[in-house]
Amino acid sequence: MPRSADTREIPLYRQLAALYVQAIAAGSLRPGMRMPSVRELCQRHQVSLTTALQVLRHLESQGCVEARERVGYFVREPDGMALPGAREPELLEPLPDDPSVFAGINERISMFLEKARRAGPVPLDLGSAMPAPSLFDARALNRLAQSLLREQPDILVYGPSAPTTHPEFQQAMARHALTFGVCLSPADIGATHGNSEAVTLALDAIAEPGDVIAVESPTFFGILQAIQVRGLRALEIPCSPHTGISLEALELAARNEPRLRGVVVVPHLQMPQGSVMPDAHKERLVALCVEYGLALIEDDIYREFVESPRALRPAKAWDKVGDAGQVIYCASLSKSFAPGLRQGWMSAGRWQARVQMLKFARTRNMQTWSQLLAARSVDSPAYERHMRRMRIQLRLQREQSARAVARYFPVGTRLSLPPGGISLWLELPPDLSSTRLYDQALQCGIRIAPGPMFSNTGRYEHFLRLSCGMPFTPEVEEAYRTLGMLMERQRTELPLRRAA
Amino acid sequence: MPRSADTREIPLYRQLAALYVQAIAAGSLRPGMRMPSVRELCQRHQVSLTTALQVLRHLESQGCVEARERVGYFVREPDGMALPGAREPELLEPLPDDPSVFAGINERISMFLEKARRAGPVPLDLGSAMPAPSLFDARALNRLAQSLLREQPDILVYGPSAPTTHPEFQQAMARHALTFGVCLSPADIGATHGNSEAVTLALDAIAEPGDVIAVESPTFFGILQAIQVRGLRALEIPCSPHTGISLEALELAARNEPRLRGVVVVPHLQMPQGSVMPDAHKERLVALCVEYGLALIEDDIYREFVESPRALRPAKAWDKVGDAGQVIYCASLSKSFAPGLRQGWMSAGRWQARVQMLKFARTRNMQTWSQLLAARSVDSPAYERHMRRMRIQLRLQREQSARAVARYFPVGTRLSLPPGGISLWLELPPDLSSTRLYDQALQCGIRIAPGPMFSNTGRYEHFLRLSCGMPFTPEVEEAYRTLGMLMERQRTELPLRRAA
Repeated sequence: MPRSADTREIPLYRQLAALYVQAIAAGSLRPGMRMPSVRELCQRHQVSLTTALQVLRHLESQGCVEARERVGYFVREPDGMALPGAREPELLEPLPDDPSVFAGINERISMFLEKARRAGPVPLDLGSAMPAPSLFDARALNRLAQSLLREQPDILVYGPSAPTTHPEFQQAMARHALTFGVCLSPADIGATHGNSEAVTLALDAIAEPGDVIAVESPTFFGILQAIQVRGLRALEIPCSPHTGISLEALELAARNEPRLRGVVVVPHLQMPQGSVMPDAHKERLVALCVEYGLALIEDDIYREFVESPRALRPAKAWDKVGDAGQVIYCASLSKSFAPGLRQGWMSAGRWQARVQMLKFARTRNMQTWSQLLAARSVDSPAYERHMRRMRIQLRLQREQSARAVARYFPVGTRLSLPPGGISLWLELPPDLSSTRLYDQALQCGIRIAPGPMFSNTGRYEHFLRLSCGMPFTPEVEEAYRTLGMLMERQRTELPLRRAA
Repeated sequence: MPRSADTREIPLYRQLAALYVQAIAAGSLRPGMRMPSVRELCQRHQVSLTTALQVLRHLESQGCVEARERVGYFVREPDGMALPGAREPELLEPLPDDPSVFAGINERISMFLEKARRAGPVPLDLGSAMPAPSLFDARALNRLAQSLLREQPDILVYGPSAPTTHPEFQQAMARHALTFGVCLSPADIGATHGNSEAVTLALDAIAEPGDVIAVESPTFFGILQAIQVRGLRALEIPCSPHTGISLEALELAARNEPRLRGVVVVPHLQMPQGSVMPDAHKERLVALCVEYGLALIEDDIYREFVESPRALRPAKAWDKVGDAGQVIYCASLSKSFAPGLRQGWMSAGRWQARVQMLKFARTRNMQTWSQLLAARSVDSPAYERHMRRMRIQLRLQREQSARAVARYFPVGTRLSLPPGGISLWLELPPDLSSTRLYDQALQCGIRIAPGPMFSNTGRYEHFLRLSCGMPFTPEVEEAYRTLGMLMERQRTELPLRRAA
């Protein structure tokens, strides 16, 4: 539902359409079900015939319903489902670096980011995996902020005191972790600047320059950057788009790579493929890390974006703290509730003391303000309500995006709809280049995240990550159409160039 | 002046005494001047004889005034001035590491910090160089925060966008830099988590593991930590307590140390000695760095704490950006206006692009909230008013602390009152150990910063940093008396132990 502050600007028929779009996403109206008729809509919502008809036509244009002649409108099967699914990786052993590419992962990422910066503000950012601001409960957060300022008027002038993490934050996150089956000692919870700092501190703690860190392939480029700036080497392990990292390939690496110190995984909605690791894999992964003495850096930033009837337990739940404490658990509120706070946290198992020391040496203490706000957010009833709403809205946006891919992208494009999250990972036909598409799209005011950003191996040139973070407006649909056209153009230009 | 919210709890005579204490600190009542008589005080402030007498007796007990029989009360010369001053360093060449000490600087700092943590909240923290929360303008900052939340109700849910630093913050800091004679391009200003992150990013940018960084000796332990966790080696350069780092010794190091990559200086109120580098030294320092290709990391966190009739220009003002951009300028609002925001910034000269990339790889984007609040703070008229008030208050507290040192510490203690700042650096008689004093004081609920925290050379065992950040209450005075007693006890225990 659009927030009430905005409703005055949105035409009535769009508001009503949004209601039905959400009902479809939430599953209360399922594919194949008959929609209310024009007359029924008039009565139900006290609107004119014109408005009621507009509602149904708008839903049709969005691909949510289809008209069957003389019968009425019916909820449509999402098109995205009709696309061929993502393929399993071919190799199940560590992937060789492309030496011509490896040295420059940061330069390459910086190059993409620099191009984006030069292009200035882009009307359509399909490149960053963030939910749009309108998907958050800004009002609830603002209320919490105002009441914190009233209750503790001096909070912004209180400087650092000895412990770097506030006890109220530690307790709130420990309680929060209990809700998904992990029992953490509050004293072992450290606040960080987003989960990026958590992952980089974990890398600092477990490895020395020249050491090797296993990562999923493909993986979030931020992890590759963090590994490189620390002077470490990333070893890419094939990753299933459905079950996550290949444990066989990881074990092979653990046996053969003497400088392997740890592995970074995103167990829930792996970035960019969107896989959710089955519990049995998590258990085996932890056992494997204990056996080979590897640190398991678990980046659990997308857990709450998984659509699942039950709470998913992270690998940390299988970590026997007294025994080893082999898992460094990293999380954040940046994606789920309060992007503007950049409030992350971690619990580093047996590296806890070292992580604390490194944190103090690098960025010292944290805002009390942001920690208390985060603690109270997680504790407030608004939090779960908000997450439920956001999951429904994102599912809708993913499905709308997948439909647009099916409609506008070249035949042969592969996509598995992930069971949650903020983005889609696409495999384009192999003659297309996402690097070129990036440049072309930027000129049209559209930002995407090209495949090569997610690996050192040079393997993902015809892959693409697209954000589903923003509501699927006609402008977003138009952007998908433009991307489709640009890919067609790539194909017509290629033979020409060869002929020249 | 105590803030009005608190006045109800403070007896009238203390309020009036505080007024005169401030007048003395501000110089409107100078040493040797006659104080108003009891009768004059009664008339002037409409108080009883008893209250007026209490005011003068309280001022006397604080060491601010002295009674001359049958004449009246007179403003006293601060006692601190009577102490022998700090000594110039003996050597003017790079100081050799103590190999038994070097390896463990972080472990040693961690050991002190860990002891402090275990001791729990300490009633009297003379260990951290922070102004007390009561010295800040919490009300002005809270008002700014509330109005920002009203004006931009979504500010806490806006996630990162492409540039990591907000343009409004960049412009405000560039304008701010102009007020002290430095012209920076807004685009070259990067927001950081305090100035700690700024300094660590600078180190990341200029050096590789194994490289050497010159530092002042003694220096802030955070700088030594940052150097070590990055795998670099700190080379300590003797530092005058009056003019700062020895340029002769630095040049010697530049000639003889092939892996020397840069130098970190705190030009204004060097930590812990409190020296302010003369302009001529700054100019020569920049020239020297250009000549030898060294990065000059300028940590200017205490500039606004210098009591000076004119704005002090940092070394960055002598940096010819077009030519070299050899100075990496680091600053923060954490000490001066809003400790709770942890808002620092930097301008990295020719390392700017690299610093931006490293920042993005490590902690990604910054809070818009905190950046806008900092930008508006610096732009508000409350800022300069607050800094003037704080400088006066800190001067008073430094003088009161110095008097207490003169009164309670062993003969032979050396101290030069610094021309500003939040702390005093003391040289104790050489038979005393500040490491032992640290342990003993902690047991009495007092935290201090012992000399060995500030060096890898093992040179400062009989040195001590004491914070003057909190108002000089009777409890603080009592802490000084206790420290004096503990030092006496060290002396009486030592011969006993030798006899045993």
